[in-house]
Amino acid sequence: MKEIGIGLLGFGTVGAGVVKGLLDNGGLISERLGVKLVLRKVADIDTRKDRGVKLGPDVLVRDANAVIEDPAVNVVVELIGGTGAARDLVMKSLEAGKPVVTANKALLAGHGEEIFALARRKNVDIYFGASVGGGIPIIRALREGLVANHIESIYGILNGTCNFILTEMEQTGVSFDTALKDAQKAGFAEADPSLDVDGHDTAHKALILASIAFGCNPSPDSVSVEGIRRVSLEDINYARELGYRIKLMAVLKSVDSAVEVRVHPTLVPQTNLLASVSGVNNAVMVRGDLSGDTLFYGRGAGQSSTASTVLGDIADVARNLVSGSPCRVPAAVMPGRRVKLIDINEIESRYYLRLSLRDEPGVLARITAALGTQHISMASVLQKEIQHGRFAHVVIVTHGAQEKAMIKAVAHISSNSAVGEKPVYIRIEG
Amino acid sequence: MKEIGIGLLGFGTVGAGVVKGLLDNGGLISERLGVKLVLRKVADIDTRKDRGVKLGPDVLVRDANAVIEDPAVNVVVELIGGTGAARDLVMKSLEAGKPVVTANKALLAGHGEEIFALARRKNVDIYFGASVGGGIPIIRALREGLVANHIESIYGILNGTCNFILTEMEQTGVSFDTALKDAQKAGFAEADPSLDVDGHDTAHKALILASIAFGCNPSPDSVSVEGIRRVSLEDINYARELGYRIKLMAVLKSVDSAVEVRVHPTLVPQTNLLASVSGVNNAVMVRGDLSGDTLFYGRGAGQSSTASTVLGDIADVARNLVSGSPCRVPAAVMPGRRVKLIDINEIESRYYLRLSLRDEPGVLARITAALGTQHISMASVLQKEIQHGRFAHVVIVTHGAQEKAMIKAVAHISSNSAVGEKPVYIRIEG
Repeated sequence: MKEIGIGLLGFGTVGAGVVKGLLDNGGLISERLGVKLVLRKVADIDTRKDRGVKLGPDVLVRDANAVIEDPAVNVVVELIGGTGAARDLVMKSLEAGKPVVTANKALLAGHGEEIFALARRKNVDIYFGASVGGGIPIIRALREGLVANHIESIYGILNGTCNFILTEMEQTGVSFDTALKDAQKAGFAEADPSLDVDGHDTAHKALILASIAFGCNPSPDSVSVEGIRRVSLEDINYARELGYRIKLMAVLKSVDSAVEVRVHPTLVPQTNLLASVSGVNNAVMVRGDLSGDTLFYGRGAGQSSTASTVLGDIADVARNLVSGSPCRVPAAVMPGRRVKLIDINEIESRYYLRLSLRDEPGVLARITAALGTQHISMASVLQKEIQHGRFAHVVIVTHGAQEKAMIKAVAHISSNSAVGEKPVYIRIEG
Repeated sequence: MKEIGIGLLGFGTVGAGVVKGLLDNGGLISERLGVKLVLRKVADIDTRKDRGVKLGPDVLVRDANAVIEDPAVNVVVELIGGTGAARDLVMKSLEAGKPVVTANKALLAGHGEEIFALARRKNVDIYFGASVGGGIPIIRALREGLVANHIESIYGILNGTCNFILTEMEQTGVSFDTALKDAQKAGFAEADPSLDVDGHDTAHKALILASIAFGCNPSPDSVSVEGIRRVSLEDINYARELGYRIKLMAVLKSVDSAVEVRVHPTLVPQTNLLASVSGVNNAVMVRGDLSGDTLFYGRGAGQSSTASTVLGDIADVARNLVSGSPCRVPAAVMPGRRVKLIDINEIESRYYLRLSLRDEPGVLARITAALGTQHISMASVLQKEIQHGRFAHVVIVTHGAQEKAMIKAVAHISSNSAVGEKPVYIRIEG
């Protein structure tokens, strides 16, 4: 049986998962592929730590270059993360004509165009299935299974940490801070959680999906990103009362010949399957013009589930190597496209708007007048009894409105002396 | 740009959907593939009917052989259905070295081994993504994305007609007969609905999934199949009260070195995502040893969604033709395997058991004794007030028990003079 040599860069959690997967399921994989995957070299700066898996002699090295340069390594698997050394090593590997498998979303979100262009020029594969959705084969579904579709929209719950926190808040009634601490204790959140809770991780993944679905490559800075730090228990509870749940979502839409890509807390109807995605799980709802709505759900992170997708990619590269068909599925779909990103101010959405209003005559009339001036009409209003000193909460669900109109209306409302704390507005999708 | 010629066999609903997809999205597909897909010939016995799509001159013919034999046709797409002419034409095409794309589940469930063996011998592709799950790219996910996993279980809601009927019954409180008539009116059920409601369509799809996941090819006759005709509104309501929904499910499990493949109405906890799959939608929950639980959801049938998957398969075959890599992913995974199918009597399950009991002293004690004799223990009991003459309904949810023990216990219980109508038992999963 033909052998394909694997070289790993980075021997952390996912790296150890890939090694375990090869050890435990290597026979099965060979049986299915007709090719034997052989682990040749693993590079990590820490060569002493016990990862719970046994490597052969001389497999673990400190120098990543030794992995790329080893003639017995046919596929380089980058699991270092970040955009420094990882970028250099991925470029070096492609430059040397060696296919790459990576799970590095930050790298692809920031340097995808450059990396994909080099892969195309050298006619070498780069696979990155595990960069979005962990164990969910969503990249493959989008690039291959749904290849015949104009993608109309993608809604993604793409960060397990945020979904765990929001689920905890809703189900147990704890605050954001407490839920974050719970997530950290359970190992679902980093000591510095900002990459997750501020939405950047979700944004990286959204950019990768945008590149595949729409052939556009906006820079990470140009995308509107809002995290979950300001999601309050009150809003979660009002949302539930109105028939919604709050999720951190990546929202991607094709509108005429331009696209929306944004990340923010979002109200989702409880009847939408996405609302039932709880805990650290991820899910992606893709609407194609032919397929209709399809949903892909699973573990968004974790050692073995991420390894499952990395190994699926390695299998693909191995098939391409054996059959002499590199770049069978190009990494950059439609590289020639220049698709305009719609500014967040120009989008249209429905909104959840929570106001603190002093209980005095005519207040609500003035608020609704301010909305009316901006052509924002109301779908429903929920007024709660006074709980916070002299202020009552009024929650308004709007019909579709322009973001810029909403911003103007909220500014106008905020200036009203009867309004207490700053109004909160959250977009509604689905 | 290189051209790949497409020939269609069968110009029905899905056939017309494929033609529409090529007309509407052909430019997009070419841009993504780097290959132009050109419709060369379409065969159907009815060459006059208006399908709402325009074909070029001389494209539509009566003779299917003319499609296969046309040297300009590089890929044959079989959309005739059934196991008669479709089988002969698929074999003829493969024999001629022409790759085949098919959506024909009955054909593959009944003749898959023979067809896959011929494809392997001739080194020709056969793709069949649309045979299971319509617009959901589940076959691809299982064969490629999850290739590194031992598949532990698959739960599938695979028949839109049945799921529509069960959803209607639960949501509107109508009987099976009324719901079936509604489905027929809405165009979701055939005039003769037996292939759907008796579970055979689901069984065909289960067999295809079993072949990919476990490398086993049991004959359709050897699989235990139960449809939804006997699902009563009473059981749907009791199930809901106990926190479950009733779904027609394909259940596939790997148990030691053997497998279970069965189709039957199943109680699913309401908290399980599968319970939220309503109407004509389909979903498949796959548990891999590495990936954990992954769920794939979408439209299980319909013109454009099925066409989406057929076109995805055509794209795959086109990539293989262009890059000279036929059989890159073999149709028959692990053809050498001989995996034992576990007899339904030997399975273990939890059960929902509904009894009609005369209200007399000591009856429930005798019933529970009958269960105890078979080592079946009870997780919960729900006794309803007497509604049906002198009989009260008692609903028992058991812990895990052997099917054969359950059968014995039910036979014993049925013989009790205090028992009214025949006991109903339904398996619980998830």
